[in-house]
Amino acid sequence: MGEVTIKKRVVGIDISLEATTYAIVDVKGDVITMDSFPTMDYPEINQFISALSDHLISMVEENGGYESIRSVGISAPSANFMTGSIVNAPNLPWKGVIPLGALLRDRIGYAVAVANDADVRALGEHAYGLAKGMRDFVVVTMGTGLGSSIFSNGMIHKGTDGFAGEIGHTCIVNNGRQCTCGNKGCLEAYLAARGIVATAKEMLEQSEVPSLMRGVENLTPKLIAEFCEQGDELAIEVYRKTGELLGMGLANYASVIDPEAFIFTGGISRAGKWLFEPAKEVFDRCVFRNTSGKIKFLVSEDDRAANDVLGASVLAWEVREYSLFK
Amino acid sequence: MGEVTIKKRVVGIDISLEATTYAIVDVKGDVITMDSFPTMDYPEINQFISALSDHLISMVEENGGYESIRSVGISAPSANFMTGSIVNAPNLPWKGVIPLGALLRDRIGYAVAVANDADVRALGEHAYGLAKGMRDFVVVTMGTGLGSSIFSNGMIHKGTDGFAGEIGHTCIVNNGRQCTCGNKGCLEAYLAARGIVATAKEMLEQSEVPSLMRGVENLTPKLIAEFCEQGDELAIEVYRKTGELLGMGLANYASVIDPEAFIFTGGISRAGKWLFEPAKEVFDRCVFRNTSGKIKFLVSEDDRAANDVLGASVLAWEVREYSLFK
Repeated sequence: MGEVTIKKRVVGIDISLEATTYAIVDVKGDVITMDSFPTMDYPEINQFISALSDHLISMVEENGGYESIRSVGISAPSANFMTGSIVNAPNLPWKGVIPLGALLRDRIGYAVAVANDADVRALGEHAYGLAKGMRDFVVVTMGTGLGSSIFSNGMIHKGTDGFAGEIGHTCIVNNGRQCTCGNKGCLEAYLAARGIVATAKEMLEQSEVPSLMRGVENLTPKLIAEFCEQGDELAIEVYRKTGELLGMGLANYASVIDPEAFIFTGGISRAGKWLFEPAKEVFDRCVFRNTSGKIKFLVSEDDRAANDVLGASVLAWEVREYSLFK
Repeated sequence: MGEVTIKKRVVGIDISLEATTYAIVDVKGDVITMDSFPTMDYPEINQFISALSDHLISMVEENGGYESIRSVGISAPSANFMTGSIVNAPNLPWKGVIPLGALLRDRIGYAVAVANDADVRALGEHAYGLAKGMRDFVVVTMGTGLGSSIFSNGMIHKGTDGFAGEIGHTCIVNNGRQCTCGNKGCLEAYLAARGIVATAKEMLEQSEVPSLMRGVENLTPKLIAEFCEQGDELAIEVYRKTGELLGMGLANYASVIDPEAFIFTGGISRAGKWLFEPAKEVFDRCVFRNTSGKIKFLVSEDDRAANDVLGASVLAWEVREYSLFK
C-alpha cells in the first residue's frame, strides 16, 4: 500500500463583477498566495473557464504542486450550492444556467464546490470572523447586488432549492422602483449601488438645496458617503432614506428569523453610521417587540477579496469527493 | 436492580383561547383518551395550573396510572421553547412572562416541554401530517393570531431567542392598521380573525353594494366565508383583499426562506379558495423569480385540538429529563 498523504491545502476562488480572485489557503486559514484577473475580460463562459484553469494550474505548480491541493471552493453571485451552477445572475455577462462547478472540475480534475457570495461570506465569518461561536445569524452583502445568508442551528439554511436569503428581492415599496429581476419595489432597487445613486438623482431633481453631489457626473455610493462626512445635507438625506428602507426590510426579516446578529459586508456597508444609524432606529421600532433592542448590527472588516477567498476555502473543505476510490 | 420500564405514553396539552385540550398519546401517535375545559374560566394563572393538574392527574390515574407517563408537552400561544414560558401573549388573560413549564412540572412531577402553537403544529405535521419527509417548510397558523414555524434542514428553526416565525408582526402596510403588539400595519392586523372582520366593516362602510354581511351583528370570518359560498360579492372582495396581503407577506417570507411548502392551519384557513386563490396569484407574482411557481400551498386537515395535542405529544417525546438520577 502506498503512503497516504493528508492534503492540507485548498483553493478558494471569489468571482465578482470587478475581479476573479484566487488563492491557495491552508488548513489554518492562512493565505499562501493570492492573485486576480478582471472577470469582464471574458464575456463567454468557456473563455473564462480556460483562463481561470490556466491561472490556477500555474499558481498550484509554483506552490506545492498539483497533489498538494485537496479541493476547490468558489464564491459566485447567484450561485446554487446544490447544483454547483450560477443561475440567472442579473449582473454577470454569462446568462441563464452556468454549471460552473462541473465545468471547472472537468478542466482541472479537483472536486469543486460552489456557493453564492453571501453563503460563502457567512462560512468565512463563522470560521474566522465576527460570527465565531454564533448559531443563528444573518450575513447581508451590499454591493452591486443585495444578498444575504442565514445560519440556522449552526448550519447554513439553504432552503429547499438552494435559493434562501434573497432579501434583495423582497418587496419593500408597493409598486415601487423597477428592479433588474423584473419585479417592482424590491429592496435591491434601493439598497444596492445603482439604487442609492438613483435615490440621489431623484433627490437632486426634487430639491433646490445646494449639494456637493450636484454636477458630479459619475456619482457613486462611495462618493456620496464622502460628501456625508463633509456635512452635505442632501447626501446625508440620501443615506438616511436608504437606511430607513434597510431597517424596515431587516425588521421583517428578523421577526421571522430572530438572529443573534446581522453582519454587513460589501462596499455599501462602508457608508457606516450614515446608513446604519437610521437603519437601526427604524429596525428597533418595527421589529417584533420581544426581540427589539437585542439584535446586533455588526459591520465586517472589509477586505472583500481576501475575506471571500477565505470563505471559499471553508467551502472547499466541505466538498465531498466525487469518487470513493481516489 | 429493579426492572426498567420503558414508558410508552406521554401527555399532550393544547392551550388555546377557546379551550385547553389534554390527552394521553402513545408512542405510535394514537390518542388513548382526550378531554378539555374552557381556558377563560381561569383568569389567574395559579388557578389555571391547579385546574389543569387536577384534570391531568384524574385522567392519568384512570388510564394506566402515574408511572405509565414519560413526560408532558404543551402547545401555547406566544410560548418560548427555550425557557418554557409564555411571553407577553397578547390574547391570553395571563400577562407578562408566565413560567408555564416550571409551574406545571412543580405540581405534577413530570418533565414538561413547552412550545408555541405554530412550532407544535409543525412538529405534528412533520411526524404525522402533510410535511412527512420534508426538510424545509413553514407552517402558518391563522386564527385569533397569526403565527408561523420554520423547519430548516429537518429541524425547527427557533432563532437565537426562540422567537423566530413571527410573521404576524411583520409590517405589510406602511403606517397601516393598529396591531395589538403596539406597531402599525402588521400582517396580523389584517389576517387574523379580528382583522378580517375589520376589513369587512371598512368595506361595508365605503361601499353601497348590497351584501349579506350588512346588519349582521357578530360578523365572523367563518360567516363571511359562508357568504362567499353564496356568491356575496362584497364578502368575496373581503377575502380577496385579505388573500392579496397574505400573498405579499408570504412572498417576502419565501424569498428569504425558500421552503418546499407553506402549510396552513387554523380557523381562517377554512375559507379555502376565497383566501388562497388570490394569495397564490399575488405570491407567484411577487416571490423571487427562481422559486416562482415551485412553492406549494397546502391546507391542513383541521381538527385543531386533535392535531395540536398530537403535536404536543411529539414535543413531549423530545423533552429532556430534568434529573439524571430518575
